[in-house]
Amino acid sequence: MTREMPKPFSFRVLKTDGAARRGEIVTAHGEVQTPAFMPVGTQGTVKGLTPEDVRATGAEIVLGNTYHLMLRPGAERIAALGGLHEFMNWPLPILTDSGGFQVMSLSDLRKVGERAVTFRSHLDGAVVELTPERAIEIQTLLGADIAMQLDECLKLPAMRDEIARAMQLSLRWAERSKRAFETNARDGYALFGIVQGGDDHALRAESARALIAMDFNGYAIGGLAVGEPQEVMLNIVAETTPMLPAERPRYLMGVGTPHDLIEAVARGVDMFDCVLPTRNGRHGMAFTRYGAINLANARHANDSRPLDAESPHLAARTYSRAYLHHLTKANEMLGAVLLSCINLAYYQSLMAGMREAIGARRFADFCNDTTAQWARGDLPAL
Amino acid sequence: MTREMPKPFSFRVLKTDGAARRGEIVTAHGEVQTPAFMPVGTQGTVKGLTPEDVRATGAEIVLGNTYHLMLRPGAERIAALGGLHEFMNWPLPILTDSGGFQVMSLSDLRKVGERAVTFRSHLDGAVVELTPERAIEIQTLLGADIAMQLDECLKLPAMRDEIARAMQLSLRWAERSKRAFETNARDGYALFGIVQGGDDHALRAESARALIAMDFNGYAIGGLAVGEPQEVMLNIVAETTPMLPAERPRYLMGVGTPHDLIEAVARGVDMFDCVLPTRNGRHGMAFTRYGAINLANARHANDSRPLDAESPHLAARTYSRAYLHHLTKANEMLGAVLLSCINLAYYQSLMAGMREAIGARRFADFCNDTTAQWARGDLPAL
Repeated sequence: MTREMPKPFSFRVLKTDGAARRGEIVTAHGEVQTPAFMPVGTQGTVKGLTPEDVRATGAEIVLGNTYHLMLRPGAERIAALGGLHEFMNWPLPILTDSGGFQVMSLSDLRKVGERAVTFRSHLDGAVVELTPERAIEIQTLLGADIAMQLDECLKLPAMRDEIARAMQLSLRWAERSKRAFETNARDGYALFGIVQGGDDHALRAESARALIAMDFNGYAIGGLAVGEPQEVMLNIVAETTPMLPAERPRYLMGVGTPHDLIEAVARGVDMFDCVLPTRNGRHGMAFTRYGAINLANARHANDSRPLDAESPHLAARTYSRAYLHHLTKANEMLGAVLLSCINLAYYQSLMAGMREAIGARRFADFCNDTTAQWARGDLPAL
Repeated sequence: MTREMPKPFSFRVLKTDGAARRGEIVTAHGEVQTPAFMPVGTQGTVKGLTPEDVRATGAEIVLGNTYHLMLRPGAERIAALGGLHEFMNWPLPILTDSGGFQVMSLSDLRKVGERAVTFRSHLDGAVVELTPERAIEIQTLLGADIAMQLDECLKLPAMRDEIARAMQLSLRWAERSKRAFETNARDGYALFGIVQGGDDHALRAESARALIAMDFNGYAIGGLAVGEPQEVMLNIVAETTPMLPAERPRYLMGVGTPHDLIEAVARGVDMFDCVLPTRNGRHGMAFTRYGAINLANARHANDSRPLDAESPHLAARTYSRAYLHHLTKANEMLGAVLLSCINLAYYQSLMAGMREAIGARRFADFCNDTTAQWARGDLPAL
């Protein structure tokens, strides 16, 4: 029996409509249609959902968190168990972050040096060192289809000097990440560089130029969705995407709301990840065609209608608002499960709608119709 | 279009093997093969599982808790929303308890009087009164295929006088429950009486005799699994089942472990409910052919084998012990979901095995083989 060789990693732009792009990524574990949204599987699981549940929402790729997985159960352990795809029973593409962002946000006593970032594990207080080379090694052990370089991510607002220093360090780490990745390069697997530079145009441009010279498989825009207003974020996205090569995928990290996604796709972004649909789902919030709906609100208590009778996802068409309200008020696990599914399915249908609209060159109309429907708000109460 | 009329409630014994019975219950929402295990859907949901998940474990009937549902979201509300089947999207049979047991175990300031039990809601402290008539009204509003009489359930050990008093009160409440049920009787719906009498043979006999004279659709054995040793419980079951009419189903309430189920079926019980498979699943314990397995144990951390490669349930065959260990240690919701499914599926396969063995008149062999395999314990560590 001959084993099929993985295809080389590739990205093609199939259509454009203004700055918006309709594309396809090919990885070792299959294709991803872009613009794409990646559900977050922090600890080797999209919280509460089976891989079949995640697939049923329409997701073609999920994100895994290097920081969490390196601490528990450990990258070497996952590798010995056949890699992250096998471990979590998800046979489709996986992108892993580098761990850098969560070192900054979750761990104590972190110290960023030239060579490495050193921190205490939030689990047991153990001192852990993460170098750009180790971040790549971990992601290779996990078997990520798309790995990310280690970078230093600051909260905004920050001083320009500090933003410049972190950006420069991230560039040197990009170089080391690239070298480490290439020593073990395998067909079908990719490494993305991350553009930093905070809210400063010149720094973003310097970061993008230097990364492009290193020739990554794709480029992320990092350091956003860290507290700045949406307008600031979208301006930086709009300024940054034209600096990036058209023939490589562009990934806006950690973004965002449905409105963020539409606006960022309009500015040329191809890939997204965010915890919002699952985290907010666990707290009783549904994302729908009618905008965000708080199921804890008493107005749903007697409402026999489903969240969205025309949703492509079974759960959104099946369960009554009254039942989802009840599960939310009673803090029942099934409420978290169903709303996570419903929200991920809404995000995926939004992405599918954008892809179709770009293909038909009616993206602006799609965005107008979609935001107008959000603005009209939820169905009137019964 | 003519709507199909529900069949009358019925029970047939199809085969016997010693005291063990293989039977079939017909209800307004379909058939239930006995001996049957009913997963517990306390607040209108088997915790963490969709109805499709529950069905995939092999369950044909679930239990709903009157106490919880009457307090939240309320019986009238559920009725207005189309009944409990519609509310929780479970189209198959539902049995509801009367609320009595949980009034005793969960609420404060309960006061048992001749007319009613009065208590404070554990949710908001509101004073609520539950009469036998209201317990039936609630269960009718919920649309339970099988309703239970209100009874008073004591913890064991208890004084004989106290047991006798509670049993006598439960008989008077049985009479009132029966009368209330008959004023609204509908085809396909059933009411069960509950034999009380603690660990006293004469009191159990008196209770059974009086209930049989009232002619219920089925008979439960209540007041067990409340702290007494297994041997005491099984002795009472063995003494009680011969007092009950052969042509009516027998339901042992709140029981139990896989071993309890085998021993109780051997003594002539047809129906069970218990939170063990789901509650213990939420705490990292799996019930399997190899006995109970604690997934939190470090010996599973590197074990790539599934829990049971020959299980009829996909999850038990698919996910590695290492992954289930990881989910358990990381307190991930998916661990609770998967182990609840796996445990319910094991319980259902145990019931199916017993049904098949009784049909083939080799029930004793089946019990010996099953308990011998439990005694051999889990697979040796890798």
